[in-house]
Parts: sequence; structure tokens; C-alpha cells
Amino acid sequence: MKTIVIHAAKDLRIEECEAPAPGPGEVEVRVATGGICGSDLHYYNHGGFGAVRLKEPMILGHEVAGHVTAIGPGVEAVAVGQLVAVSPSRPCRDCRFCAEGYYNQCLNMRFYGSAMPFPHVQGAFREVLIADVAQCADATGLTPGEAAMAEPLAVCLHATRRAGEMLGKRVLVTGCGPIGLLCILAARRAGAGEIVATDLTDFTLSMAAANGADRVINMATDPASLTSYEAQKGSFDVLYECTGAAPALAGGIAALRPGGVIVQLGLGGDMQVPVQALTAKELQLRGSFRFHEEFFTAVALMQRGLLDVKPLITQTVPLADAEAGFLAASDRTRAMKAQIAF
Amino acid sequence: MKTIVIHAAKDLRIEECEAPAPGPGEVEVRVATGGICGSDLHYYNHGGFGAVRLKEPMILGHEVAGHVTAIGPGVEAVAVGQLVAVSPSRPCRDCRFCAEGYYNQCLNMRFYGSAMPFPHVQGAFREVLIADVAQCADATGLTPGEAAMAEPLAVCLHATRRAGEMLGKRVLVTGCGPIGLLCILAARRAGAGEIVATDLTDFTLSMAAANGADRVINMATDPASLTSYEAQKGSFDVLYECTGAAPALAGGIAALRPGGVIVQLGLGGDMQVPVQALTAKELQLRGSFRFHEEFFTAVALMQRGLLDVKPLITQTVPLADAEAGFLAASDRTRAMKAQIAF
Amino acid sequence: MKTIVIHAAKDLRIEECEAPAPGPGEVEVRVATGGICGSDLHYYNHGGFGAVRLKEPMILGHEVAGHVTAIGPGVEAVAVGQLVAVSPSRPCRDCRFCAEGYYNQCLNMRFYGSAMPFPHVQGAFREVLIADVAQCADATGLTPGEAAMAEPLAVCLHATRRAGEMLGKRVLVTGCGPIGLLCILAARRAGAGEIVATDLTDFTLSMAAANGADRVINMATDPASLTSYEAQKGSFDVLYECTGAAPALAGGIAALRPGGVIVQLGLGGDMQVPVQALTAKELQLRGSFRFHEEFFTAVALMQRGLLDVKPLITQTVPLADAEAGFLAASDRTRAMKAQIAF
Amino acid sequence: MKTIVIHAAKDLRIEECEAPAPGPGEVEVRVATGGICGSDLHYYNHGGFGAVRLKEPMILGHEVAGHVTAIGPGVEAVAVGQLVAVSPSRPCRDCRFCAEGYYNQCLNMRFYGSAMPFPHVQGAFREVLIADVAQCADATGLTPGEAAMAEPLAVCLHATRRAGEMLGKRVLVTGCGPIGLLCILAARRAGAGEIVATDLTDFTLSMAAANGADRVINMATDPASLTSYEAQKGSFDVLYECTGAAPALAGGIAALRPGGVIVQLGLGGDMQVPVQALTAKELQLRGSFRFHEEFFTAVALMQRGLLDVKPLITQTVPLADAEAGFLAASDRTRAMKAQIAF
Repeated sequence: MKTIVIHAAKDLRIEECEAPAPGPGEVEVRVATGGICGSDLHYYNHGGFGAVRLKEPMILGHEVAGHVTAIGPGVEAVAVGQLVAVSPSRPCRDCRFCAEGYYNQCLNMRFYGSAMPFPHVQGAFREVLIADVAQCADATGLTPGEAAMAEPLAVCLHATRRAGEMLGKRVLVTGCGPIGLLCILAARRAGAGEIVATDLTDFTLSMAAANGADRVINMATDPASLTSYEAQKGSFDVLYECTGAAPALAGGIAALRPGGVIVQLGLGGDMQVPVQALTAKELQLRGSFRFHEEFFTAVALMQRGLLDVKPLITQTVPLADAEAGFLAASDRTRAMKAQIAF
Repeated sequence: MKTIVIHAAKDLRIEECEAPAPGPGEVEVRVATGGICGSDLHYYNHGGFGAVRLKEPMILGHEVAGHVTAIGPGVEAVAVGQLVAVSPSRPCRDCRFCAEGYYNQCLNMRFYGSAMPFPHVQGAFREVLIADVAQCADATGLTPGEAAMAEPLAVCLHATRRAGEMLGKRVLVTGCGPIGLLCILAARRAGAGEIVATDLTDFTLSMAAANGADRVINMATDPASLTSYEAQKGSFDVLYECTGAAPALAGGIAALRPGGVIVQLGLGGDMQVPVQALTAKELQLRGSFRFHEEFFTAVALMQRGLLDVKPLITQTVPLADAEAGFLAASDRTRAMKAQIAF
Repeated sequence: MKTIVIHAAKDLRIEECEAPAPGPGEVEVRVATGGICGSDLHYYNHGGFGAVRLKEPMILGHEVAGHVTAIGPGVEAVAVGQLVAVSPSRPCRDCRFCAEGYYNQCLNMRFYGSAMPFPHVQGAFREVLIADVAQCADATGLTPGEAAMAEPLAVCLHATRRAGEMLGKRVLVTGCGPIGLLCILAARRAGAGEIVATDLTDFTLSMAAANGADRVINMATDPASLTSYEAQKGSFDVLYECTGAAPALAGGIAALRPGGVIVQLGLGGDMQVPVQALTAKELQLRGSFRFHEEFFTAVALMQRGLLDVKPLITQTVPLADAEAGFLAASDRTRAMKAQIAF
Repeated sequence: MKTIVIHAAKDLRIEECEAPAPGPGEVEVRVATGGICGSDLHYYNHGGFGAVRLKEPMILGHEVAGHVTAIGPGVEAVAVGQLVAVSPSRPCRDCRFCAEGYYNQCLNMRFYGSAMPFPHVQGAFREVLIADVAQCADATGLTPGEAAMAEPLAVCLHATRRAGEMLGKRVLVTGCGPIGLLCILAARRAGAGEIVATDLTDFTLSMAAANGADRVINMATDPASLTSYEAQKGSFDVLYECTGAAPALAGGIAALRPGGVIVQLGLGGDMQVPVQALTAKELQLRGSFRFHEEFFTAVALMQRGLLDVKPLITQTVPLADAEAGFLAASDRTRAMKAQIAF
């Protein structure tokens, strides 16, 4: 079978490898679609991010869906032929955090396509994937492209739960890439009253406006529009910070009302933060990292027609053109979510 | 009557002024004791802090207690002769945050001895204080010195409420000035299981150890002792950050377990924060600012013998020696809380 | 002007009275529409409910909207000609609960059309209503009928906030009158994943199915369908109990999963409750009573098109036929919300 | 080895059986002390309670501590000679609730000395107990009697967590048996400001007063003292309901302030509950059932001297006099916690 392997920055190769057979409790999935995530792009464009660096070739990818082609002994929850979304989250289920049910903080997490432990955890951009049945969500009724959106959508549902009360709230989303847009969808689904989104490019802002943002602000050309929300100690109840950029966080802190909540999704290393303002306004800055059971919630909400992610998929390329997909996905003036058809 | 007025850095004067009579709903208090707070010291030593600067002479002080000497028309809740602790918090009770009961975020707060609005809000270091009856907590049974601790204790009770669940938790306190020590007392009162405290001077650390910290760490000489708590993604459930110093916050973030809570009390302007680590461990950084009804809780808990603040009062000077009190309070190698006897 | 006055059970009269002029901070509203609530029906059909009994003639009504025809001195927030929804909630803003911002528990509440205090608080079924500007929500863009739904919708938004986390949850609604249906709308708006509704009549259940319930169960004819949710300690995360009937609450307790939340809206006096099952499954039974700022949230969410209450308005009768409206509203085989056009 | 076996009501026998050896991950404990719980007394006095009935002989007991006499392969956390408190909670760690970390709701729980599943789960009143190492809390520094209190104390710490914010709160405890008294200790440890306790016998009330209750009320002779707390919609923030008796719950509902929290520990079957009052005051009735990690918190807090349970142990009888211990424990005019020395 073919896999998409990153060797170093700009060195992406399609390589053959052997496909193993499913063992007890495992499922063989013929991958149909894989979405390109920001971390995949970091490996492709820069060979890593922050302290996370490629040290050996690694199969990329952690947003995948496909059809079940075989099942191992003891598997009952899925059947051959079914479309499944495959969660890339593989906690050990044995460490102290797993014992608490706090799986996304597992001490021994084996998340697909991640260079953090060494040897690296190989990813899911491969024609045939062997997964535990517990990773598989029945995605019947969805397209494979939608099903492959379950992973980033789960990230945003998790963030929305961490944001707390949302019904009728005023929400600011900083950063309108795929995560920002899925946060807009999730916030609206959870009852947000008014949603304002900021970014630096017109393309992403137009996508935000088309997918639920009530107002969009281009911070490159119109920063004063956000500043106007600072009056009387601020306006927004909730901030989804999706950039990891210090100016976005600082601007959000200024525009939040006292007692407001920031959900930090963007990963930007150390940042200069106006902690005094955060303290005086009694804001809460809450980190949000990956997800766990929200993966299944994501699939279920899409199946019920309660969340529509299809407009976010702007490019789909065949496996042979994978690198073109990575190039397209790297360009925020024309791509939102790019996917690869296997 | 005499008042303690700051004119500029190092220019502290005892000045005479007229004592007004209490109007309807007001109480005349003969001030017995006033505690010197860190913000008083900032005005005295530096003429202000951050953007808050002295622009005209201001009576200092916001930690006071005294005896009722007269009451205005309609006052029933207190009686002449009673010892009262006087809350410096005077919200407008009319703005949108007051309407929510979120008084410490009042848009028109008139907090004693504060240079933030201009003209400044004059403080409570004066022999006679006219206060609204709603500011007065019956402090019968306490010493005036204890009663004057109600204000900083209220700050720490408020922080403890914002910290959330405390029963049996592992707690880190960074900074062992009066606020740090009162946080230790409050955390223990709320059921903390293990309390570790850090600072840079042996005097404050010995005070912490004597008032409830199970372990103290001098970060100037023994930083590795804190680092040892970083194993397996970290140990502490709660951090009270009382310094406003970036290294303290960063060290706490590293030592907190995933999902841990930071209550930020220290006001340190902009700070370099390891936001990526905070995000990946899903920590919560919660600002805590002043207090409201906790002022009355503070008095009640001291009255019931459930919190003992007396050991923290290390100096009491007469009004004539007020400046000596400010000098003593500025020296963390020998003073915890210094108070002035009026 | 004309008013709708209840004198005793089945003794409903249209009576003339003088219209006063608006004072400072007050607004004169020409009432356009008034919705008939369950409590109005109790007064009409039974002269009261539980300990609440009519002791003197009382103008009914608390779900009203209309156009501003005059404003008193100092009013700036609304203008003549505007459509407003008028909140019936009039807390004293002075008691200990108002001071906490807990207005719906005001000790001196003067809620329209309520026989609980004596003399009774007269209601809002009148051609001209003088209201405080703070009661008025700008309802521009809504029909008067929709605007008059703000009050019962606010009840259900308040209940939804009390229910807590809703995103992707499984929800049971017992009782499909107007409150049950608005709970269905509110739960869906807040992100509920699956909604099951129960009642005893096919008409209300068909309305529930048409307005968001994923499944409806007629407990008169098919109780086993609910029992099937009891497997493995139960299925539902949240129960909105809208009947005040003991069997509905007991059935819900059996069908909730451990840790589930019951929001009790139905007012049914003392009830036999399976407290042992509630305890062993660690359920939470939370009372929900009226609302406060949710009245304004309700109007805003309707204006943004995020909640559509129009399908629930099944009858609108002219003022002259008010009693016909009460008769229709009393018949759950053909009416959901009946309204009076003034 | 000897065991204490209940055959039917009033038929308690000391019987010999074989002691097995510890397997992998298991620990052999020489039981030193066993506390008699209310459920043990129900089996002894009535052959069961509610639907839970003895169907075969069952070893009683689930509050035990003892010394490690041998360890199985792979055990590292405890050592021979150590005193351990043994948790009776044995969740399957595999069902859907265990997967959430919600162990006390395990679908396959095997809690010591429980007649609920059939065959019954045999208890821990035996000279030698084989336990999983995960059940054992190092109790070094405690007496065996204290260590055997870890189980009921854990129940009350769990209830205290479920009660939520406790610092400075006004607390009512209904029922002053061992659970009520441990709730008093736990509430005070968590920062309760004022604690009022009610019961029907002077002995238990005097114990309550000696162990932290600020006021005790004998409801048999002085019910009006509780009624006085009903003024202005009620006084208490929190109710620990430890009786399972409807009048206690109803009295508590009347005395709680709006928004108050009831933690229901008493198991009393179906109860007549004033649901209308609960709803109108927006109270929360929260079931609390057993515990999980609080077992270890209980031991740790006793070891640190933060909770003193010793005064509650009123009788200790040798194994040979076990039945005398059951008789003593059944008499609330002279016994609080009776224990058996093995």
C-alpha cells in the first residue's frame, strides 16, 4: 500500500509499505479521505514546530475516514463495508490520567503522525489503516470528506465545552483557519448569540462570514473595529483564541468583559500576555488540547444534520497529487481545508 | 483630625483636616488600626505603580478598623461603641456590573486610597472616618488589629473561592508576603491537603512554615526543589500566584498537573507566559481582583476562631511614627504585616 | 381602556378602567398581543392553584408585547413607535437577593397577574400598560405575537442554563405544552444531540415532533418505549420536567443515566419522589423558577433568527373573544399557545 | 481463619474458613479493626433493607484496616508490616462508567458485604483479607481504628465535594449518626462558617456539639428552633441530609435559602418531597453515593492531623463479642461508631 511520508521540510514522498492484518479487537480500514492539518503543514514547510522536530521519516496525517474492509477476532461494533471516522487519539488507558478518564492528558499518548515521542508515532495517511475498534466511529450517512472532519471538529467541540455557558453569549474568534471556522460552527451550535471573527486575510474572513460569523474584522486593515468593543471594560463573554499569536490574545483580553472566558487553542510557545488586565478583569484563560469522547459527538452531530462542515472543504486532491494538496493548504488566500482522496 | 497623606514618593506627611458629621445611613468611626498594604508601599516608595501614578496629594490606607462614635439618621445595623471593620469597597450599585451583583467590577468603584480615577479617591488612614453602614462589619470579639486584617483576608478568601474545589488538594503558593500567607491560611481553612510555598527570603518563608505551609522552598537558593514537582506532567492542583513575577508564574505552570488551576493575585503588568504549556496541559489561569461579600465572611471566620491572622502582624507603630511603619513594612526580611495604631 | 379581569373561576370579564400617564423612567405601551399562560388558565378554570387563590378581582396576563405610545421623563432606551416585549418581572432591587443579582428570588417581587401577595399584583392584559423602561426589550423585527412569546421562552432559556452542559447531550422532556415545546427549542439551540419528548395526547406530541423532538412517546398508550431507556442504569443526560406530575418525574429518574441532571419546571405541590434511586445514581434535581436577564436573551435570539417560536402560536383571538381564547387554550387536543390580539 | 457471617436477621455467626494466598497484584492483610456500618446493622436487625434482602449467608463488613502480612507477585506500592486501610470499592474498570472515571457508578461493582447482586459479594469482617493493591491506602501513623474510619469518612468527603463551595457557608446537617458527624467534620474542614445539626436523641446531639456543630436542635422536643431559620425564604446554604426520612428533607427544604444545595446521603426509598418549594426556591437536590478516590484523601487528611475521627469511636469489642458490638451499635442513645478488634 501507499503512504505519505515526510522526510524533512519540503521532502514529501509517496512510499510503498506492507499492510498488516487486523489482530484481536482491531479493524482494517481502507482509507478514503485524509484532511491536511496545520501540524502536517508545519512538518512539510518547516520540519516541525517549536521543540517538536522530525528526527526520522514519519507517515503524516491524523484526520482520516474510510471503509471497513476486514475485522479482527472479537470485533462486533463495526461491520465490513461501513464508513468509519478513525480517531487518532490512542491513550494507554492505564496511567494516572487515563484512570481519571482524562484521556487527552495520557502520559503515554500515541497520537497519529506526531514527532513528539521518539521513535515518532506514525500517521494515518496510508491506503490501509489498522485501528482499534474503539477508535472507530460509525459514520454512516456522511461523505468520507465530512467524516474526515470529525477530528478537527472534535477539537472545537472540546474547546466549546471548556468555554462553559454559551447560550446567548457574545463570542469573539481570533483566527479564521479551519479551527477558527469550526469554533464558529460549534459556538453557534451551542447557542452563541453574536459571533465576531478576526483574521488578517479577506479569504478566510469571507469564509467565516459565510459560515456563521455575524461580523468579521480584518485586523490588518481595520483594527479599530475591534477596539470599539473595549468600551465599559469590554463586550465579549467568550474568546476562542485560535492563532497562538500574542497580539490576538492581547486584543481579545482588552475586548472581553470582566469575568469573561478565553479558550486558548492556538499553540504559540511563550507569549507576552497582559496578565495585569486579565487579573483586574478576573478573566479566565483556559487551555484546550485535543479532545476525547467529543470525536464521537462530532460524528453524531454531523449525522443529525446539526453541524454542516462541507462548505469548509475547499480542495480535494488525489493521492498522487498529495504535495499539491499541501501547497494549496499552505495558502490561506485560497484554501480552508484541503483533503486527499486515497 | 490627623490624616496620613502621600504627596510624592518618599514624601509622607501627617496632616490635619476637618472631620465631617455622618449623614443619613452613615457611621462615624474612630479609626483604631490601619494596616499598610503593598499598594500603600508603592505610593510611598515609587509614587505609584504601572500606569497608576499620584497626581495630587492623597490620603493613603484601605485596611482599617475602629469604634463607632456616632451614627447618622436611619442607621440600625451598628451601635455606638461597637468595633467595626470598614470595607474600602464602595461600588456605585447602579452600573451594569453592580446590577449583576458583580460589585468588584463596578464601573464607578470608589475604593479607598486609590490614585486610579482622578481626582483620586481619598483613603482611610485618618483618625475619624465617615462610612456607609453597608461598609461596616461588626467585629465584636476581635482586636482592632485583627479586624484591620479583614480586607487582605477578604482578598484571599475571594481568591480561594475562585480556585474552586480545595478539599484534599495539593496547593502551591508563590510569594510569601501578607497576601501569600493569608492565601495559605485560606487554603488550609478550605481543606487543602498539602501546601508548598515559595519565596526568595528566609524570613517570609519561616513565617509561611509557621502559619500552615507544609513545605517551603527558597527559590533563590534551592530552585531544584520546585522542579522536582514537574515529574509526570506535574503535581499541584492549585497555584496561588501572589508575586506578579513572570518566573514565579512560569515555574508554577511547569509544576501544576494537567487541568490545574492558577489563581492570579499578583499584579505585574505584562508578563512572558508559557502559554503553549498552559494550553497543552489544559490549565486555567484565573484572575482574582479584590473581593466583595468575602469581607464579611473574613470577619465572621475570625470571630468563630476558624482563621487566626494575629501571628502575621509583626509591627504596630503609633500614628506619629507612621513613616517608620512604612519603612519597616518595606523590608521583607523583618516585616510581614505592619499596622498603625491611630 | 379595556382590561381582562378574573373575578372567580369561570367569571372572566372585560372591564373599562382609566389609563394613567407614564412617570419618570416609565413607558406607555399600547398592548398588541398577550399570550395565555398556564397560570392564567388556573385562575380561569379553578380560581387559583395550590395555596394561591383569588381573593379579589385581578387583571390577568404576563406575556405581552406592544408599541410604545409615549415615554416619561428621562427615558432614552426606547422610542415612540417601537415594538417592545414587556417583562412581567419587577424585583425590588433592594432586598438581599436583589443585592446578589438573584432577582428572580426577590423578596418583594411584583410579577404581573399574580394572586400570591395580597393585594394581588394586577396583570398586563390591558389595552394600555405603563411599564418601567427596564422592563422593555426592543423587539424590532419580530411580530407582536413572537414578542409576546419572550416571557415563556425566557423561562425555558433560564432552565437550559440551569441544566448546564448541553452540547451533544441526550435530553428527555416530559410534558409537551408550551413550556415543554419551548424547552425543546431551547435545548436544541444549546446543542442537544438527541431529544425525546413525552406527553399523553397526540396533538401535543405531534407539535413536539414538528418542532425539534427526535422522538415522541405517548405515555398513555406506549409507556414501554420510555422504559427501554432504563437499561444499564439509564440513558438521558438531562431531563426537563415540565408536568409537575409525580409519575413523569419518577419515569425520568429511572431513564436518566448516573450523574444526570433534572431541571424541574413543573409546579406540582408535594410529590412522591424515588429519592433512593436519585441518590444511588447521584442525580441532581434542580428547581428552575421564572427568569431574569434571559428575557432579553430570548428577544435577541428570536431577532437573530436563532429560535423560531411562531409555529407554537396556534390560536389568536380578538380581545372581545378573550374567553373563547381561554377555552381554546384549556384544550390540549387542539391548542398550544393561544394569544389575544388587543 | 474466622469470619463474621450473617445468615438471617438476628442470626450472626462466627465461622471458620480457609484463607487463600495473594495472587499477582494482591495483598494479604491481617485485619486489625472493622467498623460496623448502618447497612451491616440492617442485615443484622432486619435481614436487609428495601429491595436488598439476604438470600444466602454473607460475610459482613466493609470498613476495615489491618497490617500487610504478605504480598503477591508484582506488588510494590505496599510492604509487609505496613498498616493499610482497605477500600471496599471494587469497580470493574471496564464498563462505560469506569471508562469515564466515574467508578462509584460501575455497572459491575463488587462492593464488600453487599447482598445486592446474587450471589452476594462477601464482606471484609474476616481475620485475613486478600485485596488488590489498588484497594490499599498506606495508613502509617494512624491507629487501626482510625484507619477503619477511612471508608465512612470517604463517603462524607465525597458528599462535601458534591456540595460545592463551602467556605464561610451556613450548613445544616440532618441526622447525627456516624455519617452525620463525619459530615460535620468534613464541612468544617472544608471551611463551613456555621453548622447546625438536628436529630431526635440527646446522645447523638451531644456528640455533634462536641465535634464541631455550632448549634444542635432536638427535633423531637424543639422543632420550632429549626423553623426560625425559615424567615425571609430561608437561611442555610447547604443541607447534608443523612436520615433518608421525609420530614428531615422537608424541614431542610424550608430552612434553605434560595439557590441552596441539598446533598442527599440518607437512603430512604420513595419519599414525599415538597417539590414545589424546591422549584420555587431553585434548590438543588444532589444524590451522593459512596466515593472513589476520596478514600485515599480521607487517609491522607487524617494522617496530616487535619481531621480527627477518634472521638467518634465509642465502642471497641473483640471478635468473640462481635454480636455485642452489633447490639451496642444499634442503640443510638449510647453508641456512635462501634468497631470490632480482630
